[in-house]
Amino acid sequence: MQSAFDLKPVGVVRKSADDVRIEIFDEYQDALLGLDGFSHIYVLYWFDQNDSAEKRRTLQVHPRKDPANPLTGVFATHSPQRPNLIALTLCKIESILGNKITIEEIDAYDGSPVIDIKCYIPASVKDADVRLPDWVGN
Amino acid sequence: MQSAFDLKPVGVVRKSADDVRIEIFDEYQDALLGLDGFSHIYVLYWFDQNDSAEKRRTLQVHPRKDPANPLTGVFATHSPQRPNLIALTLCKIESILGNKITIEEIDAYDGSPVIDIKCYIPASVKDADVRLPDWVGN
Repeated sequence: MQSAFDLKPVGVVRKSADDVRIEIFDEYQDALLGLDGFSHIYVLYWFDQNDSAEKRRTLQVHPRKDPANPLTGVFATHSPQRPNLIALTLCKIESILGNKITIEEIDAYDGSPVIDIKCYIPASVKDADVRLPDWVGN
Repeated sequence: MQSAFDLKPVGVVRKSADDVRIEIFDEYQDALLGLDGFSHIYVLYWFDQNDSAEKRRTLQVHPRKDPANPLTGVFATHSPQRPNLIALTLCKIESILGNKITIEEIDAYDGSPVIDIKCYIPASVKDADVRLPDWVGN
């Protein structure tokens, strides 16, 4: 596959009846040092179930698949249909053991390829400075 | 380039003495519809200046390049050295005109390739539930 940038999975989402985990591949386990100091992480994964030319060409959607919400550009949403199929989601860590991060929940399918993990540091944006369109509150 | 996933730039960071802009390529401009309803965006860009095998092999760093901070896995930081060179940063929108999003500031170089834009919706995480290691407050 010809790609502008070399993007590879670093782990995988695993969901079972018992728990929800991010399993980082062994070769990247050293990148988890100190992660246990954080309560939350950003998980970036790839919407691999949508990796078709058609879904990547989708530039406008009705947010949350609700036709009552106005047609909106995908860059103004977190839609799983977008030019680059990057998902960004905030997760609460329950425990870390070796290369396995057990998390509270994640809006991903079992088997989704994880492409990055970043620590969560709360934004210094004041609530009063945040503006949102009406559909967000619906 | 052989890549697991096809990742392509959708725009570019432009910095001048006058302003800081995200310029979205014409073919993706329709994805901006409704973005003007938001005050802030997540900008995802590619640390293209670090796109070497050596920097992508770096799994542990001293956060903020401060040797006083403990050696930490890159997944527990926002380091620009990491297996996949994805940067995630929150920006305040000043104005949007056509395919140009003028923002207050961004911690990126002029010319950095933009790979995604997502609307910012504040996290529903309570401050009391957030845990951070000491180096974050240093």
